[in-house]
This record gives sequence, structure tokens and C-alpha cells, in this order.
Amino acid sequence: MKRILILGGGGMVGQKLAKRLETQGLPGFGDFKVTLHDLGFADDAVGDDKRVGNLSVLAEGAALAAERFDVIFFLASIVSGEAETNFDLGWQTNLWPMWHFLEGLRAQHRATGGAYVPRLIFTSSIAVFGGPYPDKIGDEFLTSPQTSYGAQKAACELLVQDFSRKGFIDGMSLRLPTICVRPGKANLAASSFFSGIIREPLNGLEAILPVDDTVRHWHASPRSAAGFLAHAATLDTGQLDGRRSLNLPGLSCTVAEQIEALRDVAGNNVVALIKPRRDEAVAKIVEGWPRNFAPDRATALGFEAEKTFREIVDVYIEEELGRR
Amino acid sequence: MKRILILGGGGMVGQKLAKRLETQGLPGFGDFKVTLHDLGFADDAVGDDKRVGNLSVLAEGAALAAERFDVIFFLASIVSGEAETNFDLGWQTNLWPMWHFLEGLRAQHRATGGAYVPRLIFTSSIAVFGGPYPDKIGDEFLTSPQTSYGAQKAACELLVQDFSRKGFIDGMSLRLPTICVRPGKANLAASSFFSGIIREPLNGLEAILPVDDTVRHWHASPRSAAGFLAHAATLDTGQLDGRRSLNLPGLSCTVAEQIEALRDVAGNNVVALIKPRRDEAVAKIVEGWPRNFAPDRATALGFEAEKTFREIVDVYIEEELGRR
Repeated sequence: MKRILILGGGGMVGQKLAKRLETQGLPGFGDFKVTLHDLGFADDAVGDDKRVGNLSVLAEGAALAAERFDVIFFLASIVSGEAETNFDLGWQTNLWPMWHFLEGLRAQHRATGGAYVPRLIFTSSIAVFGGPYPDKIGDEFLTSPQTSYGAQKAACELLVQDFSRKGFIDGMSLRLPTICVRPGKANLAASSFFSGIIREPLNGLEAILPVDDTVRHWHASPRSAAGFLAHAATLDTGQLDGRRSLNLPGLSCTVAEQIEALRDVAGNNVVALIKPRRDEAVAKIVEGWPRNFAPDRATALGFEAEKTFREIVDVYIEEELGRR
Repeated sequence: MKRILILGGGGMVGQKLAKRLETQGLPGFGDFKVTLHDLGFADDAVGDDKRVGNLSVLAEGAALAAERFDVIFFLASIVSGEAETNFDLGWQTNLWPMWHFLEGLRAQHRATGGAYVPRLIFTSSIAVFGGPYPDKIGDEFLTSPQTSYGAQKAACELLVQDFSRKGFIDGMSLRLPTICVRPGKANLAASSFFSGIIREPLNGLEAILPVDDTVRHWHASPRSAAGFLAHAATLDTGQLDGRRSLNLPGLSCTVAEQIEALRDVAGNNVVALIKPRRDEAVAKIVEGWPRNFAPDRATALGFEAEKTFREIVDVYIEEELGRR
């Protein structure tokens, strides 16, 4: 039986992916067993094989690599706001463990005489880009990150591409849109409010809006995120022609359009729970982020996301609030 | 008196730069003293303060950082062919020492309460790019390296940009064209023959041409390289708008055009010393490299290179063969 590893499997996207793999499998991949690895797991986390550990401990990555998983999803990361505040922690968490884990995989590649070449899917981010931007960012636009998080993701992409080019792994980096609506609590990502202004009001709570409602951004639902990852697991990577980082499809809209979608679904009283209170630090980071893409390569490769923000709100209500 | 450090100061470009600094100074910079650091130096190497050491020894970089140089040229690197053959050595030499040296500079920044912010000029390369290419590569074209050397240079660029954005250093990465005509012996760079086919015949020696003469490439002379570095040392980096990697000007021509320039200068008998002998490994690396650029930003910032390959040949003859 094949084996799949999700690094960062206790996080929101990791859990969505684990649930999807459990319920939908991977078309054409055959039977498999999933292992999740993270610093910790919620009490209700899914997964039969959950490992608690820290990838920043180098031996941890080497030990996991030695298990020779067929497919590895590398989702482990600290978020953008934290990486910006804590420079040391950001680089130590978001870059070096990737290097050491890849070195672990390469050691297994060597030990098997080159037979072991795992598929590795790395969750990168649109934070690898930095302005000024064209109206729509194309597939050949430069990466010039303006946050440490973005620089760390871009550096990991270079490693994934070079280890793949050398044939040690068969890797891809998926530049995820901002995932919205995230369930659960706000996190330290500067993008957290994009979810908060929908999630909190739908749960009867106030939400702070720290930026102007003219801010345009690039979104996809957690369901789409899990779909991207599952799709990448079995994609023919020969189609990538050596460019192993992909801008993924998403939905471009303004905060005002997000709010109107919420109003459509839930009405004025719910929208009234959104309280504008500008936060310069958040505004500065977010306003430097991409607003819109023309992700032609990923679309041609079969990656799919929502077409309207209303669909994104509906996914949240259906998956998290259990109603349609 | 200000102090300048050249890491990789024993190499060809390092020596050209040291000579230029000695003879021409840095306009508007004032008096300075130059320190050169490298694994070793030729007997006739210029420089009053030459240090032999290995930047891969982490304490070495930290000790140099502690001297708080005003301007640092980071030229230390192993070349493309070697980085491709020896994966470990490439990454260990071309990426990690940069990280540890930058950390050393950051420690000095902290120790001075933020007062110490050195100018750091990193010699990157057009090898950060990977095909397919447009006819001319513009300033917003993606970096998708197809060699380990290119990936290492691109990763260093990300570090230089993020440390600069945070204000720990004031850095820039210069994506040098292939430097041609290199004096001295052939090296392990896959690009070495671009110089060899001019240099060896002018010295009465045979030269191997390992690629087709239709190969188009992007060149600048060693004199231009030293000029780029000197220009970057005193540039107002505020003009970079946070994009601290620059495609530099150069001259695009085919190998056939190189050979015709040599014929113009030296005649048929000299050109007859060029022996075509295809080397698939070299051809594969080089044919994946960029051929032409539109380096608008660098040109606007005052960087200058040769306009014809004949000028490049003339620079070699004037500087290395001592005649015009």
C-alpha cells in the first residue's frame, strides 16, 4: 500500500486535505495510508497516524524521510505576520527545515540507487510577489517578495525546483491564493481578517476590518486548497517543462465585494458586525500583495477554484456551519 | 578612513575591481582602504591587505563582519560547471556562507543599535533565468533557474533583498552577463569557452568550441564588470524601489559574430585555431541560458557596458596583451 505524508497536517489546510483524502481518495493513485505530522493536533483532528514533532529538529525530518513516503505534502510553515515580526523564527522555520528535509529525501534517493523519487507538493504563496503589479499577474512575472514570509517561500521554491531538476524528488510548488473563509480562530497571518470579516459575523461576533474596503485580493476556499493539493499529487509533472512553481487559480475581489456577498447571504444586521478600524502594520503588508492573476498554466493543467465570492461564502456555510 | 571588503578578491573580477579602486577610486565616496579575502591569491595579485581564508568556515564570515566594513563586494562563489557536477559543494559554497555572513552583519547592526548598515554588492548571474525566453528578457521576467548555480544565486538574491528590506544591510544583487574575454586559464564554468575561443587564439593556442556557432549569448568585459561593481557601491539604492536585483547591460551576439570580431582584429590564421568539438554537457547547460536582454532599469540607473563584441576583444588586447 502506498503512503502519504502531510507535514503541517494539524493545520487547517492539512486537516481539510486529510479529510478529502479519506473521503475521496486520489483518482488513479490506488490505495494509500496517510500520516500526519505537526507540532500538535486538535482533539477532534482527523487521521489514524498522527505524529507530534518539530521539523526544526533536523533529525525529525531525516527520520520522516527515512520512511520513504510516496507522496509528501509540505505544508509546515509559520504565517506571514509572525515571520515578519520574528525574523529569526521565520527563516529558521520556513526555510532551513525544508533544506534539511530535502537532504533527507536525497539520502534515501541515494540509498535506493536512485529508485526512490517521492512526489513532493510544497504550499508556496502569492506572497512571493512584490509590487508594482500589472493588472493581472501572468505566469512569467518576477518574484520580488516584500515580506520575509514571501522571501522564505520563494527560496523554498528554488530548492524544490533544483532537487527536482536533479531527479532527487519530483516536486512542485503551489502558490496558493489567500485561503478564505478560514474556519476557527484568527491567526497571526496578516491576511487573517479576509476570513474574519465573513466568519465572525456569520457566528454572531464582531470583526475588525483593518484595511480600506477598496483593497482587492486573490482568494480561494479551503475546499479549493485541498483540491489543488490532491490534483497536484497525481499530475504528470513532465507537463511543467522544468518550471515547477505554479500560480493557482482564484477569485479576485475587493473587500467591499466580499461584504456585499455576505450581505446577500446573511443580511444587513450581520454585515453591521464588521467594524472598520485601520491597522497600519496590516494595511502596509496587505496592500503590497497581489490583487489579480491570469493563472493560465495552472488552469490548463486542470486546477480549479471558485468563480465568485458568494461561492466562497457558501463553501464556508456548508462545510463549517453545516447548512446550505 | 572608510573600508571596503572584497570577498572573492583573489578571483579575476575581484582583482579587476581592486585595480580599478586603486587607480580610479570611487567618485564622491572619499578615501578608503581595501581588504581582499579569498581561498588564495596569485603571486602577482594586487592589494595591500590580502586575507586567506574560507567563508565556508562560519566563524570566518562572522569575524570579517565584526570589522564593520562600509562597503562589501560579495564575489565569492564556485562556478556553474562545478556547482552542477558537485551538488553538495555548490549549495554549501554558494548559499550557506551568504546566509551566515549576512547573519554576522545583522549581529553588528544590532550591536551598534542599528547604526551599522553596510552597503553589500552581490554578484549574481543571468543563470537565475531559465527558458523558454522572450526575444529580449525584460526587467520583470521570472527567475526559474535550470542549473544549481542559478538556483543558488537566486536564493542569495532573496536573502540580500530581505535583509535590505529589514534595514540590516543596504544590498543589491547584480546579475552579471557572462564576463568575456576572461584572462588567464579556462575555468570550470560552462561559459568558459566564450572567452577561450578569443583568448587562446590571440595567444597562439588552439581553443575548443563545444557548441554550435549559432549560439547567442550575453556578454560584458571584465572592465565593465569592475565598472558595474564600482557604480553600485555609491548608487542611491532608494531608486531601486525595493527590487534589489538588477539585470545589467551587456552585448548580445552569436558565437559566429564573436569569431568574426576576432577575424577582424587578428585574421584568418588566428581564427583557424578554433576547433569545433561539440560537448553535449556544456551545450545542454549553455543553450538553456539567456541570449538577450532589455535591461532598462540598470541602464536608467547609469550602468554601462560595451556595444559591440569588437570592443570586448579590444578591451582584452589592451588590458591583457598590453597593446592597442
